[in-house]
Amino acid sequence: MTENEKKLRDYLDRIAQYNTVLNLLQWDLHTAVPKNGAQGLIDAISYFSTEQFQLSTSEEYGALLKNLAQPEEYGTLEEAMKLTVTRYLQSYEEMCRIPKDFYTEMVRSAAESGRAWEEAKNASDYSIFCPHLQRMIDMKKEQYGYTDPGKDVYEAMLEDFEPGMDTAAIDGLFDELKRELVPLVRAISEMPQPDPEKCRGHFDIDSQKHLQDFLLDYIGFSTDSGTTGESEHPFTTSISFGDVRVTNHYQKEEAINAMFSAIHEGGHAVFDQNINPAFAKTAACEVNMMGLHESQSRFFENILGRSIHFWEPIYDKVGEFLPEFKEIPLEDFEREINRVQCSMIRTEADEVTYAFHIILRYELERAIFHDGVTAEKLPDMWNQKMQELLGICPANDAEGILQDVHWSDGSFGYFPSYLLGTIYDGMYLEQIEKELGDVDKILAEGRIKEITKWLNEKIHQYGALYNSKEVLQRVCGREVTAEPIIRYFKEKYKRIYRLPEM
Amino acid sequence: MTENEKKLRDYLDRIAQYNTVLNLLQWDLHTAVPKNGAQGLIDAISYFSTEQFQLSTSEEYGALLKNLAQPEEYGTLEEAMKLTVTRYLQSYEEMCRIPKDFYTEMVRSAAESGRAWEEAKNASDYSIFCPHLQRMIDMKKEQYGYTDPGKDVYEAMLEDFEPGMDTAAIDGLFDELKRELVPLVRAISEMPQPDPEKCRGHFDIDSQKHLQDFLLDYIGFSTDSGTTGESEHPFTTSISFGDVRVTNHYQKEEAINAMFSAIHEGGHAVFDQNINPAFAKTAACEVNMMGLHESQSRFFENILGRSIHFWEPIYDKVGEFLPEFKEIPLEDFEREINRVQCSMIRTEADEVTYAFHIILRYELERAIFHDGVTAEKLPDMWNQKMQELLGICPANDAEGILQDVHWSDGSFGYFPSYLLGTIYDGMYLEQIEKELGDVDKILAEGRIKEITKWLNEKIHQYGALYNSKEVLQRVCGREVTAEPIIRYFKEKYKRIYRLPEM
Repeated sequence: MTENEKKLRDYLDRIAQYNTVLNLLQWDLHTAVPKNGAQGLIDAISYFSTEQFQLSTSEEYGALLKNLAQPEEYGTLEEAMKLTVTRYLQSYEEMCRIPKDFYTEMVRSAAESGRAWEEAKNASDYSIFCPHLQRMIDMKKEQYGYTDPGKDVYEAMLEDFEPGMDTAAIDGLFDELKRELVPLVRAISEMPQPDPEKCRGHFDIDSQKHLQDFLLDYIGFSTDSGTTGESEHPFTTSISFGDVRVTNHYQKEEAINAMFSAIHEGGHAVFDQNINPAFAKTAACEVNMMGLHESQSRFFENILGRSIHFWEPIYDKVGEFLPEFKEIPLEDFEREINRVQCSMIRTEADEVTYAFHIILRYELERAIFHDGVTAEKLPDMWNQKMQELLGICPANDAEGILQDVHWSDGSFGYFPSYLLGTIYDGMYLEQIEKELGDVDKILAEGRIKEITKWLNEKIHQYGALYNSKEVLQRVCGREVTAEPIIRYFKEKYKRIYRLPEM
Repeated sequence: MTENEKKLRDYLDRIAQYNTVLNLLQWDLHTAVPKNGAQGLIDAISYFSTEQFQLSTSEEYGALLKNLAQPEEYGTLEEAMKLTVTRYLQSYEEMCRIPKDFYTEMVRSAAESGRAWEEAKNASDYSIFCPHLQRMIDMKKEQYGYTDPGKDVYEAMLEDFEPGMDTAAIDGLFDELKRELVPLVRAISEMPQPDPEKCRGHFDIDSQKHLQDFLLDYIGFSTDSGTTGESEHPFTTSISFGDVRVTNHYQKEEAINAMFSAIHEGGHAVFDQNINPAFAKTAACEVNMMGLHESQSRFFENILGRSIHFWEPIYDKVGEFLPEFKEIPLEDFEREINRVQCSMIRTEADEVTYAFHIILRYELERAIFHDGVTAEKLPDMWNQKMQELLGICPANDAEGILQDVHWSDGSFGYFPSYLLGTIYDGMYLEQIEKELGDVDKILAEGRIKEITKWLNEKIHQYGALYNSKEVLQRVCGREVTAEPIIRYFKEKYKRIYRLPEM
């Protein structure tokens, strides 16, 4: 290691300490803190964020990065360190191009906008949020004008959340999904639905937690490198390398949501837990490709978890934790966890209609940044597209355009990654069947950890070293395509809903 | 508020942010972190401790404190701020008198000594620990030579843990306890003991946790300002003002220890939760009088919790949480929680023989610092005093001199405060009976919160504003005396063990 690399690594070590405490403060704020302690944590978050910002924008830091970016130094670096220098220098230089006053103003406006969104959602009154949303749109345009001069703003945003993807590629994929899934969902809507009451009851919360521990262990979550908590909305976070935590939210009258949240967050965690330990404290550990990350959580949740074969070897065990399930035949359980039905809320949608929720948001984002549509026009467009894609119309803005937090802090371009993840999942499934054999059989025989191991080796260990396009090329040997996931949806739901040939 | 006070308060605000994250890191390290995440937290603790040390020893900080210590400024301050300036300036000046190299060396030696103690305890081999202990003794002598030149070292140490107390006072109190309790315990030892098997069984851990929540609520712990966790050894910590947390340790075969740990830690927490909110981020919030703090936890645990009347109104409830208790008559439960029996381990001792464990440690500490006894001689002295006070002799050093962590990091002078707390409790009990009436009756009628409220108003709200001597004078109107606690022990255990008149 050169002297310069050692210096940079020492500096990154310091930044990592701030990451650890900021992650821990956020974790605690959402899982543990009592009401009267929240302000103390928020004060600390604000203080240490500022300290960290100063460290990550200092001239000293810039000089260390630039030293290592010199060809003679850069050539001596390992892959993870090359990525670190490239990515952090890019962020650093982008940050330096943003005028300080504008940046401060943007952070302030985003916080205000977040509060306005919350208020607007609670009151189901878009007019409270509308001016803030317009301001975030304008500020994001200005920000990317500084950081990526001359580049299309929306393309630059997509690049931030799923490097290597652009609207040309996404348009093609999403149009194909729309074309194929609209008729599928229409056909399903004409068939009888399972009775939702069959899977309701009274489920002990402690027992649900024990079941979650069991499910996490079953899919390969390591309790040596992770733990669990309880929060209003489930999430996954890494405190430091080797410490990946998932949360869940439990309800007494309904246990299935928490089971699938466990598997979903467990999928995120299994990714982070299996990154090459040599990448600790480098950019290769920060998987900033949301589609790639979401592809892992959704693979476990949907492709594996919503298969009846996932449950076959463990359904008795579920009944041991939650005796109510002894009364629910596995076939009824399968019907319930694969109920496809148009509904208003993205986060509650099934795996098929979920696509429409994302396509809607993507089309609105394009309209904002490509066609100059203003915030004022968005609720009507939202409702119109809901009608078009899902055949239903929100009764109010709370269950319509105000349902998601993302736009309130300016995270435009994030939504497509959820659906891209699902598209990648179809490709992985196809590839796993080629390499490991029939997935239904693997699951039915309780050998799911062979699949986890395959994902560890093919994807997880590399962390952020390759972007999603590169991962797909390396793992599946082909360009991204929606064909496998569409085939999966059609075959699965034709069987489950006994659809006539279409 | 003067300009100088505002500056100091801003500076204390910054230090408080470090307290928050250091407290949170320690909390998480002991309650949540997975095995592979511990190093990440330890690294962060080390980093932010160093940062905080620099803040608390900076010239800027010293100047701010000295400004406010000037009579014309000092006179304008509220009580809590006066205490803050006095106490922090004293610490600051003491710290400045310690040579930097010596301080660094002492921190390093204490860490090494801690590791050696752990190793020695696990191997039950005092020789591993002996040179480290001698080093800590020598370094503490040197340290107090810098900070308190000309003062007796052991008196200075006692002053650190229980300001206002000295060996003259403690000698008198402890000798009286010894004189009165040795014959009491001897008389008890001739009487039949309850059968320990009566209270053993298999107790569901989740249910024990719910019972802990119930007990905490029952004694007045606020879940708005506190929460609970699980750790190897129970403890109480404040993350920030309004966020006081307690932990517990559960066993399947035995539920009583955890119940009393809950009440003990709850007592500590009820103190911290009820300090005047105006004292936040001042020295008045840091109750550095261990005897005073311990008097609160032990009052709830022993004086209240080990009374049959505490349980009368809630014993059915205990049986609802842990059905095994439905089979244990309340009278058998009372006998078990008041079993007095000489044993080796301080932390497992009953409320009466506990006194001997402390007196032994106090006498050894005095021998070290007054008579120059070396580390080499301590195990023999320990065993001899065990025989003298408790009539038993440790089979090895692990259950003898190596059992406690305190001396390994140089915390000499801490132990007496545990027993001082008990002595204060006898005085509070007497005073409460004068002001509120018969405590047995109050407990039996489920009105324990009246006692909690009395403690809140008389003691807790003032935080660290008055030292223990002052508190006793203000609350009980008299000097510290062991007479009430001795009377309490005699009356209680004569009844429970049906002792003949002595």
